[in-house]
Amino acid sequence: MDAPAPFDPPERLLCGPGPTNVDPAALEAMRRPMLGHLDPALHEMLLELCALLRSAYRAEDAEVVLPLQATGTSGMETGIASLVEPGETVIVGVNGYFGRRIAEIARRHDADVVEVTADWGEHVPNACLLNALHEHRDARLLAVVHAETSTGVEHPLAELGAEMRDADTLLMADCVTSLGGVELEFDAWGIDYAYSCTQKCLGAPPGMSPIAFSAQAAERARSRSTPLGFNFDLDLLTAYWTERPATYHVTVPILHIYALHEVLRGLAEEGLENRWARQAEAGARLQERVGEMGLELLAEPEHQLAPLTAVRVPEGVDGKAVQAELLARGIEVGGGLGPQAPAMWRLGLMGPNANVETADRLADAFAEVLAAVGPRAAERPLAAATD
Amino acid sequence: MDAPAPFDPPERLLCGPGPTNVDPAALEAMRRPMLGHLDPALHEMLLELCALLRSAYRAEDAEVVLPLQATGTSGMETGIASLVEPGETVIVGVNGYFGRRIAEIARRHDADVVEVTADWGEHVPNACLLNALHEHRDARLLAVVHAETSTGVEHPLAELGAEMRDADTLLMADCVTSLGGVELEFDAWGIDYAYSCTQKCLGAPPGMSPIAFSAQAAERARSRSTPLGFNFDLDLLTAYWTERPATYHVTVPILHIYALHEVLRGLAEEGLENRWARQAEAGARLQERVGEMGLELLAEPEHQLAPLTAVRVPEGVDGKAVQAELLARGIEVGGGLGPQAPAMWRLGLMGPNANVETADRLADAFAEVLAAVGPRAAERPLAAATD
Repeated sequence: MDAPAPFDPPERLLCGPGPTNVDPAALEAMRRPMLGHLDPALHEMLLELCALLRSAYRAEDAEVVLPLQATGTSGMETGIASLVEPGETVIVGVNGYFGRRIAEIARRHDADVVEVTADWGEHVPNACLLNALHEHRDARLLAVVHAETSTGVEHPLAELGAEMRDADTLLMADCVTSLGGVELEFDAWGIDYAYSCTQKCLGAPPGMSPIAFSAQAAERARSRSTPLGFNFDLDLLTAYWTERPATYHVTVPILHIYALHEVLRGLAEEGLENRWARQAEAGARLQERVGEMGLELLAEPEHQLAPLTAVRVPEGVDGKAVQAELLARGIEVGGGLGPQAPAMWRLGLMGPNANVETADRLADAFAEVLAAVGPRAAERPLAAATD
Repeated sequence: MDAPAPFDPPERLLCGPGPTNVDPAALEAMRRPMLGHLDPALHEMLLELCALLRSAYRAEDAEVVLPLQATGTSGMETGIASLVEPGETVIVGVNGYFGRRIAEIARRHDADVVEVTADWGEHVPNACLLNALHEHRDARLLAVVHAETSTGVEHPLAELGAEMRDADTLLMADCVTSLGGVELEFDAWGIDYAYSCTQKCLGAPPGMSPIAFSAQAAERARSRSTPLGFNFDLDLLTAYWTERPATYHVTVPILHIYALHEVLRGLAEEGLENRWARQAEAGARLQERVGEMGLELLAEPEHQLAPLTAVRVPEGVDGKAVQAELLARGIEVGGGLGPQAPAMWRLGLMGPNANVETADRLADAFAEVLAAVGPRAAERPLAAATD
């Protein structure tokens, strides 16, 4: 075919559920000289990157911490594929799109799946999960979504980890929207396997999935009797990422690694708790502004995430038209994910966008567009919004 | 941990087996405004990217052509996982590291593997593969490495495809070092599944794996009775990449997609056959220069690849010391891959490095370092080099 014109994407302020705008320092890092994947100079840096990731996860005692060479869902599938053998039981907390996805992937891997559900916007009570565990003491894995990207709900993970401390069942947590964005304590909370992404609170481009295995989880992955896939095999990954001299596994995404190293460096400079505080402040401002517009949040207030705010679309308002008009003005926000989702907008403030100025810019534009596109929410009875 | 210094990689001329230096236009493209993975403006471009990829593979009749969201080995594993069910027979041509890897991955996926082997540096004769096919008429898949990155040997794939035209067995080809580098005709040669990477002859950074399924292979992937993994499921991939409106699957590596679009655009501008000619000219020059140094090539001359030249390390020369000294001078070349490899250097001229000037620069440096580090090859009897 004839060569098309160069791609000319419009400028966007990315305030949806991720990806967020990339940290300018990460973009700069991607212009540094390219090294080969077997270059000793790269191998030294990979160790540093893994150590930084360990800090970000608060996973100093974890057996393995490294980033996988594909986006977040590869971390989800690697956890299931590594820790569960066919016919074993997996308990999954499902209160949104990504809990459902965990259950689906577990079924694809021939697990016996027990779903513990809650409505979109609610959290799955730990008591219900623990009841399921009581009924299925042989369960290999109990999986929850720490930060449900489809609803903005945070799971009370510290409490769950404490309750499961003496169980043989491993605890897996989806931290795609929590790593670097809200408090997360891999060691202290007793998490066995966590996975995340790079394009949300970390502020790098999408392309990798940081994961962490506890000693117990790594032992389990290494003692399984059925073979693992090659690309995300724990032993092959560690032979390259953390054992020295490094053994070739796959050609890792070098420039993306530069970007990830740079944003983790920035996180260490800022301080993890300062970052959490900045995310909390930005989220609180946005949620306050949305409340002032007379709109209702989807999440239970006591489980509302800071980086992601889901807002119910009031009756009579065309949510998709609001999204499209915001996009036309250069601002991306998300809608509901999948056919089960209630009508909503998802507003994200992550990484470089996690600040009060961006919260205000987003809220201002949102109010303007809402006034232009739909009936004004403030004029409508609040009850209608909960239908 | 405390924040380390920014990563400061040294400049390298990447003349190993890949990654190659990134096309400057691709680096520039990665600085364009980031879009979300659900942005309609991105979705339009993805269709264009897939069409460009179709041209590069000469796969206008293929059912599916798209890039996977991880590096080349994900394309290898996706082929096996999609096309082969447990207990089915897979015939694999093994004459180097990557043929072995195909066989290993097929075993991990519970295939019954028949290896047809040749020594490193030789090609696997099609007659031997066809004999194996005659003995295993029920084989689901016959896999060969079109361009064996560990030896620089090209497989006579056109001839194999023609011979298999009436067989039910699917033909899979590893095109990691051939796509955009040497003649490759997906449709005309009757290939059913091909995979490649982005960091070699295409000149983009590592991070994706372009794949192509024939109608027969896609039908096979879609009618399998055992479930597939989620990340590389053909239906989920096509629902996002090629069906419109696009359905969310995973967050694709956006900036890498910009880079891939740009290098494919450059390939279309240059013309595929012109690119092959440029690669051939650069490879021929390097091979001539290496011959003038009295060194022996690993590959049979009639099956020598243009983009990759493997050179036997003469007896008495420390191959690793030569590599290290070249690296100290800013030039990366490869060594033998894995414990089975004979002592060799692997010299690559790919993508932006595929030109006579770079061939000469590499040959000059190589000759200098060889003279400085080891006994001069020209002073040694040639016979010694074949031990």
